[in-house]
Amino acid sequence: MNRDTLIHNATIVTVNQGFDIIDNGFIAIRNGSIVDIGASTPDAPRTGAFDGVDADGGIVFPGLVNTHTHLPMTVFRGLADDLPLMTWLQDHIFPAEARHITPETVVQGTLLACAEMILSGTTTCCDGYFHENSVAEAVHTAGIRAVLAQGVIDFPAPGVDNPSSNVSHARAFTEKWRGRSPLIAPSIFCHSPYTCSAKTLKRAKSAAGDLLFQIHAAETESEYRRLWAEQGQSPVAYLDRLGILDARTLVVHGVWLHPEDRAILRRSGAAVSHCPQSNMKLASGVAPAPQLRGAGIPVSLGTDGCASSNTLDMFRTMDMAAKLHKVAACDPTSMDARTVLQMATIGGAEVLGLAHCIGSLEKGKSADLVILDAGSPHFEPMHHAVSHLVYAADGADVRDVMVAGRWLLRRRRLQTLDWPAIRDPVLQIAAAIFEND
Amino acid sequence: MNRDTLIHNATIVTVNQGFDIIDNGFIAIRNGSIVDIGASTPDAPRTGAFDGVDADGGIVFPGLVNTHTHLPMTVFRGLADDLPLMTWLQDHIFPAEARHITPETVVQGTLLACAEMILSGTTTCCDGYFHENSVAEAVHTAGIRAVLAQGVIDFPAPGVDNPSSNVSHARAFTEKWRGRSPLIAPSIFCHSPYTCSAKTLKRAKSAAGDLLFQIHAAETESEYRRLWAEQGQSPVAYLDRLGILDARTLVVHGVWLHPEDRAILRRSGAAVSHCPQSNMKLASGVAPAPQLRGAGIPVSLGTDGCASSNTLDMFRTMDMAAKLHKVAACDPTSMDARTVLQMATIGGAEVLGLAHCIGSLEKGKSADLVILDAGSPHFEPMHHAVSHLVYAADGADVRDVMVAGRWLLRRRRLQTLDWPAIRDPVLQIAAAIFEND
Repeated sequence: MNRDTLIHNATIVTVNQGFDIIDNGFIAIRNGSIVDIGASTPDAPRTGAFDGVDADGGIVFPGLVNTHTHLPMTVFRGLADDLPLMTWLQDHIFPAEARHITPETVVQGTLLACAEMILSGTTTCCDGYFHENSVAEAVHTAGIRAVLAQGVIDFPAPGVDNPSSNVSHARAFTEKWRGRSPLIAPSIFCHSPYTCSAKTLKRAKSAAGDLLFQIHAAETESEYRRLWAEQGQSPVAYLDRLGILDARTLVVHGVWLHPEDRAILRRSGAAVSHCPQSNMKLASGVAPAPQLRGAGIPVSLGTDGCASSNTLDMFRTMDMAAKLHKVAACDPTSMDARTVLQMATIGGAEVLGLAHCIGSLEKGKSADLVILDAGSPHFEPMHHAVSHLVYAADGADVRDVMVAGRWLLRRRRLQTLDWPAIRDPVLQIAAAIFEND
Repeated sequence: MNRDTLIHNATIVTVNQGFDIIDNGFIAIRNGSIVDIGASTPDAPRTGAFDGVDADGGIVFPGLVNTHTHLPMTVFRGLADDLPLMTWLQDHIFPAEARHITPETVVQGTLLACAEMILSGTTTCCDGYFHENSVAEAVHTAGIRAVLAQGVIDFPAPGVDNPSSNVSHARAFTEKWRGRSPLIAPSIFCHSPYTCSAKTLKRAKSAAGDLLFQIHAAETESEYRRLWAEQGQSPVAYLDRLGILDARTLVVHGVWLHPEDRAILRRSGAAVSHCPQSNMKLASGVAPAPQLRGAGIPVSLGTDGCASSNTLDMFRTMDMAAKLHKVAACDPTSMDARTVLQMATIGGAEVLGLAHCIGSLEKGKSADLVILDAGSPHFEPMHHAVSHLVYAADGADVRDVMVAGRWLLRRRRLQTLDWPAIRDPVLQIAAAIFEND
């Protein structure tokens, strides 16, 4: 089905162990995998049976890995900004979810999200929401790689009228999708330690088994204070006491940490998905990402859903992460461009348990990659490609996107999705949401 | 020369006093000025003698005003990131400037900067650098509106071998450009209170007269401490003592302020150009922009030069400003989208003394405006246009740009600049810079 492809005339940012950058490089792709990569010579590459793709001197790098999304929430983009967290949630987002989130709107919102992600160079996402079967259908249509989780919360939620069945819903989702698609890995997502009981958390973690278990935790000061008041522990210490934290647990946010939480996270093997844009926009705080990394805790990057961060553009998130940590630490070396790019690629792959397959451009790995058009004025001159990926690029610079050897974007044209056909139903959903807000 | 233009089928964000947003609106432009603006009706607008331009349902808003740039420094984009400030300046930027900044490289770097600004919706910039005559020539070619200043510093600088003639150089520039172009206003730029003597500062301010006087001040902690050690005052109080601060003075950065500085700025009438991206990337600190605004001090937005902030995209700066101040204040209401858009348009115009002419879309003002393509996935749905301008848009969404009734960009094609002809000499300059770095 997929033709073998040979990409050439590229600056290749491999993000491999040695962080090799190959000038005038080529990548040969066969059956969805990288079979050769290196610097072009007068003799190599030989195009042979390959479909040759000229990168026109652009930058080729591993597809971006967004480790925290709520894809269907694209339909709420910009609905309610600049508000206190509780006003935002209780007066806008929760009522809008209760009224408008159905399997149909979830499909449409997710298709929109996939179009946006592909157009901004994201090839893998990690999602948690409700009606996740509908998310999975849309993601499968788009051809993007994903870890997808049915949400668990001890309140009625879209598609789960009776909270007592929340974990069984989530388990059913994992059973349905386990081994069903080479690109989709099922997972379970508990909303948070303050919206799920200890019993729910333990049952959900047990149901996840060897699959990824995701949970929002230590996001806000009020959550932190509440856990201390109710449990006498920080959110992270509480989750550890429940046996939730291990190498298959992804703690989302990790902003409000007790000094001892770092050792707990380190010992447990749990990872942190850092979402700087969401934390900034909702004024939650600054996650100590450089310190967590320094302590040996895996840290990846996420955008969060479009209700809070407004776009799914990982370039924006990389730039923001680098600048936020410099100013927060009063130290311009505290998070450099290379570190941020690693967090957004191989770091994300590691956190999701996919590093054997994606996250860097190396022989034997899946061909999940991006070709960036480096010919625009804001890209010239290009003294250092990695600097430009983090500090100059935005989603619109993405020219081509490939997942497992299949083109999802060619010269800015979506290959698996029909944008006008996605747009019209989204506009209808949006009109109803806006009317009721 | 310019045809009269009628833009229709637009969501118009006027940024006028009432912050009116006009759905399905039109703007009529004659002789470079807005002669009518309003909501379309079955009868109006009548196209008549106008050149009709369909905005295709996009957002039309005032051209962005970037109140702090060093345009020619595009040639150093990404040359040296993630370094301590003094290493960055002394080991990379100063040597590169000494070696490579000539009238010719300044022209090429400025043309590149203008291409980038036009492509990202900036219609007015405020610049300070050396060989400013060459900057002015390039800006004039591009057709962008600008306040331009020859730099003053008590050290040898590009084009000024003998510092004792720095103020006379700057004065000569203002005399040459005063009244020469309707789009270019001359100005004088003193580098800082620690690189210019009291005598130089006073002479330069006197030479500026009624023209805008710009100065980097209160940027870093080391500057702040140095001024206290040498002058016994904060940078702002010291400038006030010298008589430098008045309604024609633009203090660039204003990060490190003594509690009393707010009252000094307020009383003097001086304004502040806030450059959040540069302050974050160089780890200088967080300027108290919301507090300054709250005290009645005019605050605008700037990108700073590409050596520190890497791009001239004001959309990125708006998004960053809104998010930075929310997280810095732990308050998501501390700087909202509307405030940020005002700072980037009418606020910038006020600070530059151009509010009679630009900064909002109103009858009688100059037609300096942007048409944004709102049809991309990351723009759907559009519950609130202003939210999208700040939190979702990036430079690449800009479709058309007009300054004083003249199109500088039409459907992403530069109208006044020839990008390939700009690019080639920039690449040559860059190769030499990279080799010597």
